[in-house]
Amino acid sequence: MEAYFDNSATTRCSAAAADLMMKVLREDFGNPSALHGRGMAAEQYIRDARKKIAATLKAKEKEIFFTSGGTEANNLALVGCAMANRRSGRHLITTSIEHPSVENPMRYLEEQGFEVTRLGVDRRGVIDLQELREALRPDTTLVSMMHVNNEIGAVEPIEEAAAVIRQKQPSCLFHVDAIQSYGKYAIYPRRIGVDLLSVSGHKIHGPKGSGFLYVREKTRIHPQILGGGQEGGMRSGTENVPAIAGLGEAAREMYDHLDENREYLYGLKQRFMDGAAAIPGVTLNGPAVRDGAPHIVSVSVDGVRSEVLLHALEEKGIYVSAGSACSSNKPSVSRTLKAIGLENRLLDSTVRFSFSIENTAEEIDYALGVMGELIPVLSRFTRH
Amino acid sequence: MEAYFDNSATTRCSAAAADLMMKVLREDFGNPSALHGRGMAAEQYIRDARKKIAATLKAKEKEIFFTSGGTEANNLALVGCAMANRRSGRHLITTSIEHPSVENPMRYLEEQGFEVTRLGVDRRGVIDLQELREALRPDTTLVSMMHVNNEIGAVEPIEEAAAVIRQKQPSCLFHVDAIQSYGKYAIYPRRIGVDLLSVSGHKIHGPKGSGFLYVREKTRIHPQILGGGQEGGMRSGTENVPAIAGLGEAAREMYDHLDENREYLYGLKQRFMDGAAAIPGVTLNGPAVRDGAPHIVSVSVDGVRSEVLLHALEEKGIYVSAGSACSSNKPSVSRTLKAIGLENRLLDSTVRFSFSIENTAEEIDYALGVMGELIPVLSRFTRH
Repeated sequence: MEAYFDNSATTRCSAAAADLMMKVLREDFGNPSALHGRGMAAEQYIRDARKKIAATLKAKEKEIFFTSGGTEANNLALVGCAMANRRSGRHLITTSIEHPSVENPMRYLEEQGFEVTRLGVDRRGVIDLQELREALRPDTTLVSMMHVNNEIGAVEPIEEAAAVIRQKQPSCLFHVDAIQSYGKYAIYPRRIGVDLLSVSGHKIHGPKGSGFLYVREKTRIHPQILGGGQEGGMRSGTENVPAIAGLGEAAREMYDHLDENREYLYGLKQRFMDGAAAIPGVTLNGPAVRDGAPHIVSVSVDGVRSEVLLHALEEKGIYVSAGSACSSNKPSVSRTLKAIGLENRLLDSTVRFSFSIENTAEEIDYALGVMGELIPVLSRFTRH
Repeated sequence: MEAYFDNSATTRCSAAAADLMMKVLREDFGNPSALHGRGMAAEQYIRDARKKIAATLKAKEKEIFFTSGGTEANNLALVGCAMANRRSGRHLITTSIEHPSVENPMRYLEEQGFEVTRLGVDRRGVIDLQELREALRPDTTLVSMMHVNNEIGAVEPIEEAAAVIRQKQPSCLFHVDAIQSYGKYAIYPRRIGVDLLSVSGHKIHGPKGSGFLYVREKTRIHPQILGGGQEGGMRSGTENVPAIAGLGEAAREMYDHLDENREYLYGLKQRFMDGAAAIPGVTLNGPAVRDGAPHIVSVSVDGVRSEVLLHALEEKGIYVSAGSACSSNKPSVSRTLKAIGLENRLLDSTVRFSFSIENTAEEIDYALGVMGELIPVLSRFTRH
């Protein structure tokens, strides 16, 4: 049996999205900038995708800007807004558990003379709204916060954070990295006071190389990739029509069944956490089942190194990620796990299980069975 | 009959490239950063693509950095190099006929305090090497030049330009925008002294959303998109594995039949130019058949506006582009056509025919027949 439990790293592209991409690649392959019918046919795919996505956010179509993915969307949001508003101030706020695609642009901005405050989190990975309130200053131009943490599934109180920002520092922009939450939650940025929101396609069964940034109307932001002026001048380069079409279709699929999908995922997660908690030596990190996102579970196994567990599971066809690996094959100590105060001895003994709607209860039971057998053996082996 | 002659805007994705993409999207969909087998399988597609592409350039695999397309590659090359080397100087050189994805980053760099010299071109669209030599200064850190112009098919003397740079200002970097030439010519950047070279996938029957920047080993350049450190830290974001795989396959296909493809295209071009030249009122712009690129012809029709001709041809199933439209549906006067000294009355009466290996002699003959009938009627109509 195989069980792919690395859906927070990437998901399988849905059949409907892939089929649409194939049609665009082979038949409706025009350049949307072309003035003839082949161009207009291609442009129609982009319009359709923008419409589908805007509907999921209750946003205007012109507020959706397609990018090459979540990382580019985060870079555009942070560098684009910080630079566009630098005359108003050079103080930025973020959290201590952000993805590298937020943390590294923040470090770049620090090199450019910005000051960055990083909010701490509690044991569950959740920020303190009072700390946010105190961090806001007259020269704070941007707060960037993830909605769902990619390692432990912590859910940040973005609606309450938006209210704090609006109340204390109304001119400050609020960016939400929704890469792990879009497709799992109904998010209406305008209604809750979010100015910028980043999304990645390949986390929601859309294609890699797709994503978008929601930019609230009239938000000051500088484009980062310059050229032919596509995407209203916000992001130049021939539009990636097949990927955009696939992303739109994947978004539609996710939001057509949002509530039932989320309940299904919570069912899988509950089943997994109940079973895993009963295995000796296993610690479940982060929030309780329903306090966290429906698809992410962080598991530490005392005395077993992450990579050892990962590869032992892989031999049984179970795919998970090393909880402390950030990305690009470079394992390093997880900032998130440190921030929630995980004991040092567990930092390097943590793996992440992340589920999708393609997973089944049978796969969960299979994984639990394998873990129940493997972990006592691995623990013994490691102790010797 | 249909004849798609807008291949310099975009080409149809090849069947082999699209099939490979489908396989990656639906089967081998892992995240290349994942430490398990699904990740390694995905990484293998990237390695294969990098290998195929490096072979076409006689480059090292580690010199190939995948991007979301040609525009991003140009932005990375220009902004990345200008910024990384700004302590050595702030003078840049380019030409007056560059694509907006070079011209607009140059304007951005001017706002950042750089000085940019734009070389003129002759009637055929070709730069003057003596002018380049004179423009080079001790503080010139980068020369950026397109290999093939996208509007008239002019071929710039990049090898000779590289020699001039090496001789007068050896520390100056040389960037070539090869977006319209890759797949048509054998280009060996290291051998001829090119430090950076931009390529787009969708111009060579690869997918949109794919491209790469060749960066010669040890070239100083700053990454522009920051995050998880993919592509050796040069370009963060989960790799667009399906598009990269498709790009590699398309590159292989183009270079497996490079010489015969080019001869085939020159045959189509010769046939078209011979026929078009015989139609009253038609002017062929830019270089002679074999002096220009094998796939691009710029045609002016006295007294007929570009868009009128474009749509009249479209009604007969012939797709071309308005020679004066730059991109993103915003027609503006072409900088290239002005630079080659095209008479004002023809500036807005120019269309581009651009061919691919999927076109046939029958399509050329069909288009010539249609033009022979249409142009006298449209000219008469316009004059009244």
